[in-house]
Amino acid sequence: MIDALPAWLPSGPRTLVGIGDDAAVLATPDGRVVATTDFLIEGRHFRRDWSDGADVGHKAAARSLADVAAMGAVPTGLLLALAAPPDLPVSWLESLASGLASECCRAGASLIGGDTARADTVILAVTGLGDLAGRAPVLRSGATAGDVVAVAGSLGHAAAGLALLTAGRHEPAPLIAAQLRPAPPYDAGPEAADLGATSMIDISDGLLADLGHIAEASGVLINVHASTVSDQNLTNITTSVGVTSALSWILTGGEDHALAATFPAGTRLPPRWRPIGEVRQGQGVTVDGRRHEGPAGWDHFR
Amino acid sequence: MIDALPAWLPSGPRTLVGIGDDAAVLATPDGRVVATTDFLIEGRHFRRDWSDGADVGHKAAARSLADVAAMGAVPTGLLLALAAPPDLPVSWLESLASGLASECCRAGASLIGGDTARADTVILAVTGLGDLAGRAPVLRSGATAGDVVAVAGSLGHAAAGLALLTAGRHEPAPLIAAQLRPAPPYDAGPEAADLGATSMIDISDGLLADLGHIAEASGVLINVHASTVSDQNLTNITTSVGVTSALSWILTGGEDHALAATFPAGTRLPPRWRPIGEVRQGQGVTVDGRRHEGPAGWDHFR
Repeated sequence: MIDALPAWLPSGPRTLVGIGDDAAVLATPDGRVVATTDFLIEGRHFRRDWSDGADVGHKAAARSLADVAAMGAVPTGLLLALAAPPDLPVSWLESLASGLASECCRAGASLIGGDTARADTVILAVTGLGDLAGRAPVLRSGATAGDVVAVAGSLGHAAAGLALLTAGRHEPAPLIAAQLRPAPPYDAGPEAADLGATSMIDISDGLLADLGHIAEASGVLINVHASTVSDQNLTNITTSVGVTSALSWILTGGEDHALAATFPAGTRLPPRWRPIGEVRQGQGVTVDGRRHEGPAGWDHFR
Repeated sequence: MIDALPAWLPSGPRTLVGIGDDAAVLATPDGRVVATTDFLIEGRHFRRDWSDGADVGHKAAARSLADVAAMGAVPTGLLLALAAPPDLPVSWLESLASGLASECCRAGASLIGGDTARADTVILAVTGLGDLAGRAPVLRSGATAGDVVAVAGSLGHAAAGLALLTAGRHEPAPLIAAQLRPAPPYDAGPEAADLGATSMIDISDGLLADLGHIAEASGVLINVHASTVSDQNLTNITTSVGVTSALSWILTGGEDHALAATFPAGTRLPPRWRPIGEVRQGQGVTVDGRRHEGPAGWDHFR
């Protein structure tokens, strides 16, 4: 299957040695490489009765490459370790390859290597590599009091999609897609770095949990304005899945792979970077000045 | 556990951003990075009743970093994705960390990042990164007729160790260790590149199978001289585990993570690069001029 992938995904100009040797060789003209690795495990990060192979391919690439973008880097390479049961249909693997190829293409990365093994369930481990192109990496630790907090990408859509799927529904399609095929705004990462972002993170655990990571690493308090994150698309469906408010999806839903960053006050932000709060002296995360009740984060299906 | 690893394994000078952010940043002064990813799955690549955590840590790092060395590169970085059952003892994880740290140290690499998840068995996916330091990567495809074939590292010891363990034996210790804690000769990889190696591979599938990969990629035939690979250490134990000859361990046993390479005829090889055959026109692999009967390779435990 790994051998067949190059046909789906032509290697890019940075791929000096691609799939088929002991290891790949990727050009890193910047003199640094950004690297991250993530699991995607059946039953925990996806369900095969909800996700087809292409969905899983999209999600696997997105999960890893969003982390690359969150450093302010451009995704360049992907390595896929894939374990699967022997009876997994070839068509499912082809579908996986096409989804992976499509999401890599969207991010600008090439599949450069992989490994396969047998297992009882489908397990993917995806390593994303990226290029800072001369930029300083944007860490979690640089936020300072007075900074503006902004988000690029959707919040709570993946969680709403999960609620819909759990209720047996398959509409509205954009919310289902947000859960099954998250589409991180990859280029917003380097854009934020160029705008002078002082910290940045990929929202995978949930907005409050991930802002909490920035707050902790930076030694600051982050306050979110609830009015800035409300979303009529989500409010419209709350009744149909039996919840009273969309706010918990927005504040604690994970897997959207939006990017959250902090910028010096007065930074002119392009429209897709929506201000949602500010950095203050203190510690932890508040919503409209109050600590959030309930879980801040997200633990996938269980 | 990933958070606790830095205490076991201080990051090296190339680690510009280590564990704890969305992604790591590794220095690649050469302008290229060598990258490879490999699974290590309980029940398939190791058994917890035979291997302790440290053994698995050694094997996980070795499995990936040997591939880096086989390109002619120096291992520099490692990313670990680790899935484990909730009831896995903390002491086992600490032991894993110590083994990983020890093998990374032996190879010269730093642990720069990771991911954790829950699973029913222990699953590791290890990504190795490396630096060519100006060398051309040594591919599988460069062998030409007339080249000498040579090996650095032991052959068949891991397979003999597995035969001993299967027979309930735990001696001789070096053969048991070869199975549980393979020790690839990492620096023989860049050394071979500097000596002008025309092709190279990590022996993980078995000598004949892996030489077959070189033969196929290079469009040549490789002939091995059986007398050059015989090993008294292995012959001594054949009777005790009920086999008549050690040759099949040597020719088809995997997991030793020795390096095999081809060199232009007349290359002065240092002692650890032992000549074992030659490259001819043709295709496939022969032993003393004859095709090998039986399986050429190795499929771990099943």
